Amino acid sequence: MKILLSNDDGHFAPGLSALFDHLSKIAEVTTVAPDRNRSGASNSLTLDKPIRVNETERGFYSVTGTPTDCVHLGTHHLMPERPDMVVAGINTGANLGDDTLYSGTVAAAMEGRALGYPAVAVSLVGHDCEHYVTAAKVAVDIIKGLQQHPMDKNRVLNINVPDVPYEKLKGIKLTRLGNRHRADTIILDKDPKGRPIYWLGPLPEGQDVGEGTDFHAVLNGYVSVTPINVDLTAYNSFDELEDFLKTIDN
Amino acid sequence: MKILLSNDDGHFAPGLSALFDHLSKIAEVTTVAPDRNRSGASNSLTLDKPIRVNETERGFYSVTGTPTDCVHLGTHHLMPERPDMVVAGINTGANLGDDTLYSGTVAAAMEGRALGYPAVAVSLVGHDCEHYVTAAKVAVDIIKGLQQHPMDKNRVLNINVPDVPYEKLKGIKLTRLGNRHRADTIILDKDPKGRPIYWLGPLPEGQDVGEGTDFHAVLNGYVSVTPINVDLTAYNSFDELEDFLKTIDN
Amino acid sequence: MKILLSNDDGHFAPGLSALFDHLSKIAEVTTVAPDRNRSGASNSLTLDKPIRVNETERGFYSVTGTPTDCVHLGTHHLMPERPDMVVAGINTGANLGDDTLYSGTVAAAMEGRALGYPAVAVSLVGHDCEHYVTAAKVAVDIIKGLQQHPMDKNRVLNINVPDVPYEKLKGIKLTRLGNRHRADTIILDKDPKGRPIYWLGPLPEGQDVGEGTDFHAVLNGYVSVTPINVDLTAYNSFDELEDFLKTIDN
Amino acid sequence: MKILLSNDDGHFAPGLSALFDHLSKIAEVTTVAPDRNRSGASNSLTLDKPIRVNETERGFYSVTGTPTDCVHLGTHHLMPERPDMVVAGINTGANLGDDTLYSGTVAAAMEGRALGYPAVAVSLVGHDCEHYVTAAKVAVDIIKGLQQHPMDKNRVLNINVPDVPYEKLKGIKLTRLGNRHRADTIILDKDPKGRPIYWLGPLPEGQDVGEGTDFHAVLNGYVSVTPINVDLTAYNSFDELEDFLKTIDN
Repeated sequence: MKILLSNDDGHFAPGLSALFDHLSKIAEVTTVAPDRNRSGASNSLTLDKPIRVNETERGFYSVTGTPTDCVHLGTHHLMPERPDMVVAGINTGANLGDDTLYSGTVAAAMEGRALGYPAVAVSLVGHDCEHYVTAAKVAVDIIKGLQQHPMDKNRVLNINVPDVPYEKLKGIKLTRLGNRHRADTIILDKDPKGRPIYWLGPLPEGQDVGEGTDFHAVLNGYVSVTPINVDLTAYNSFDELEDFLKTIDN
Repeated sequence: MKILLSNDDGHFAPGLSALFDHLSKIAEVTTVAPDRNRSGASNSLTLDKPIRVNETERGFYSVTGTPTDCVHLGTHHLMPERPDMVVAGINTGANLGDDTLYSGTVAAAMEGRALGYPAVAVSLVGHDCEHYVTAAKVAVDIIKGLQQHPMDKNRVLNINVPDVPYEKLKGIKLTRLGNRHRADTIILDKDPKGRPIYWLGPLPEGQDVGEGTDFHAVLNGYVSVTPINVDLTAYNSFDELEDFLKTIDN
Repeated sequence: MKILLSNDDGHFAPGLSALFDHLSKIAEVTTVAPDRNRSGASNSLTLDKPIRVNETERGFYSVTGTPTDCVHLGTHHLMPERPDMVVAGINTGANLGDDTLYSGTVAAAMEGRALGYPAVAVSLVGHDCEHYVTAAKVAVDIIKGLQQHPMDKNRVLNINVPDVPYEKLKGIKLTRLGNRHRADTIILDKDPKGRPIYWLGPLPEGQDVGEGTDFHAVLNGYVSVTPINVDLTAYNSFDELEDFLKTIDN
Repeated sequence: MKILLSNDDGHFAPGLSALFDHLSKIAEVTTVAPDRNRSGASNSLTLDKPIRVNETERGFYSVTGTPTDCVHLGTHHLMPERPDMVVAGINTGANLGDDTLYSGTVAAAMEGRALGYPAVAVSLVGHDCEHYVTAAKVAVDIIKGLQQHPMDKNRVLNINVPDVPYEKLKGIKLTRLGNRHRADTIILDKDPKGRPIYWLGPLPEGQDVGEGTDFHAVLNGYVSVTPINVDLTAYNSFDELEDFLKTIDN
């Protein structure tokens, strides 16, 4: 099996190394990751300037671009052959609920899927992440399973793993995305010259975190697995919209 | 009605001005846009540095951040009161099919919706865009309609308008997202010192462009309106995944 | 007379507009300025990515690069003919003493001189700069003088003007650069996620500010004019070094 | 002896490692370098955003800032005690003549001097640099000498070493800065979407390269040592300017 591995925390992130080490036992792994922390990069592309690639001491490709750039560049130019799967992570910190809209880790998996490859995103949920090995083992379990049972072409799996020893995991739960409180998280501050600046602050707590959500699973010690759409079309609002458009199309 | 207006092409873009002018006839408009072209920004956030805000000669807020930053900052800090709707555009060029994954214009609308407001994204489809007025008028038509008929809380409308005079439009079509060929669009080049660089190249042509898709509507002279999910959960693959997870959870 | 005008505060800076207005009375002025505030850019060049140019509503060229890039690009590509002089400013705030090492305004003038053109840098010294007109008039006085009496080819003039009405100026003084206290101005802070960050803080007060220095002149109500070397060779330490090198060259 | 070591090519540059290895034999070395290639950074400062610091596998500090930021941060915050000397390099490629205006390597040395420490900048002159060891040995020779014979407080030494084996060096020459042809080096190109972009091209050949210049020394197989002023005041044009200012000060 050939795997393209990427992340959004950068090529030096501990989660990337841990996942590389475990995946290398079951696959040929090519690692292509941003040269800087690109958390919050979502599916962004580098369009206004060219991208440069360097090799690190570990043999990873370090890219002056986004996670999406990395996957695109990796599959088409840096791998000797096309991958069988695209894996992103291990992210340091949760990618739960609406985090998935902003996450570069989830975006890397989405890009893999959009390019035609099965793809998973793996995140470790904790404040001071320690148990990368747990998340790496879970990732290996699921990836092995996907080799046997390929998934629908329009999905990626978003995997969140509690930051506990592997043997302390309660199991795996299939979940839907919950969501966080949409409170204002912006912090108004001043720079050292007294000019106003705004910081995007820490994420608010979860709001929709009831049973069935990814938040709920992880809080209760389970690995959360959520299937994520790569096609954003909201098919189930077609009827409603059909009626609506009649009222304005004249 | 109070509208927050943003885009991803930057505060100086002709599509933003055109849309501002037309929306101002029906609403109080606060415009908050990136200080640079942020096409391809997707839902990215500025997390590693603070954001600064300036006012332009037109009275727009110019923000050193992404479209998503703009919407977040605009609704919470720059508007005197919360908006009734968030509008993004007019984008210079199509946001069709999988473009929506990367588009900062669509992302601005998604952020509006995630923050609790009805939201639409408007793009003008053409090579040398001219008829911004057409797209502006269509946007006004649809926004007026949405005031009467509010939409489901998890959707934004992605509107693509052919670059023709308003009276030449064939009508409006409800569409699903098609998609483009996933050919390799990366261009390997050298910088002036002879070092290798990679450019993300122009978008490939559409692949899945049959009847019912947004590509098909626009190619045939119709305005395309696609409902976009803000919740990425792939509910319709739950059965398949339920079975799959049983095979690996031991 | 043809003048290339640039600055480091960006194309939208009030000092740039004021200087443009006054210079336009005596010359054809082409304005080429950074698209963002590039204070502290020194003589830096944009080497890792290409530069883009836009035109603003005022007819200025806005450049995604440094002040040095602007002067290089302006003289060679954006002006219809080569300039007779390069002018930088009006900077909002002092460029006194060792500020000149870091100043993008002074650098723009140095680049003009390095490319073969007479060049001056103009700064307005005050906390809440108001009297840009004063600095603009002083600049015009000196530029007119330079047309009559051209300067040595390896010098630029660094002009600092007190922020007072023109008629309140005490006169002009020829000065040497003083310098500031070299205290640690770095501020250790935390970002909203609690991670350590460092800010370069406000400039320390002047240390070597005695009579004869630029600090002294401005503090006493005079315009300060300091000739700045474009050739950095320290000729007057040749004797000392000749002896030194004999001790190690074996 | 305690040395602060920096460069402008980035923490991963081979010249930095080579110099670190050799300096470590004669001093305690703290290495603080940019996280990206910052060639052409000159004396620029990071003022619009905060700076972050990481440690690399080699124990170097990697800084999201310029060479000048690195020296400022290193001497004041990252070193346990203040350094006895600041060393910058080994730069991959020449810093001859007017290169010194733009060089981040020279700027790092200037910042060291401005903060009160003896300082040298070291560059290896060649197209495909190989003999970093040669430059490292020369640097050690000169640094040892400077310990015995401290230099004037307003100077740094700019050292350029031919890319040959150490025993092939012809000797050391005290030189003045020559300069390059000021030809237009800008390359007008198009990005993949057909929009115009400008690249700063490779440096032109030397123009003023006669005997006595740094160009001449290196071309003839000698190490070039040029004393560089940190005080930019052009004292020897005071007489000329005194007369000039009388003509305009009324």
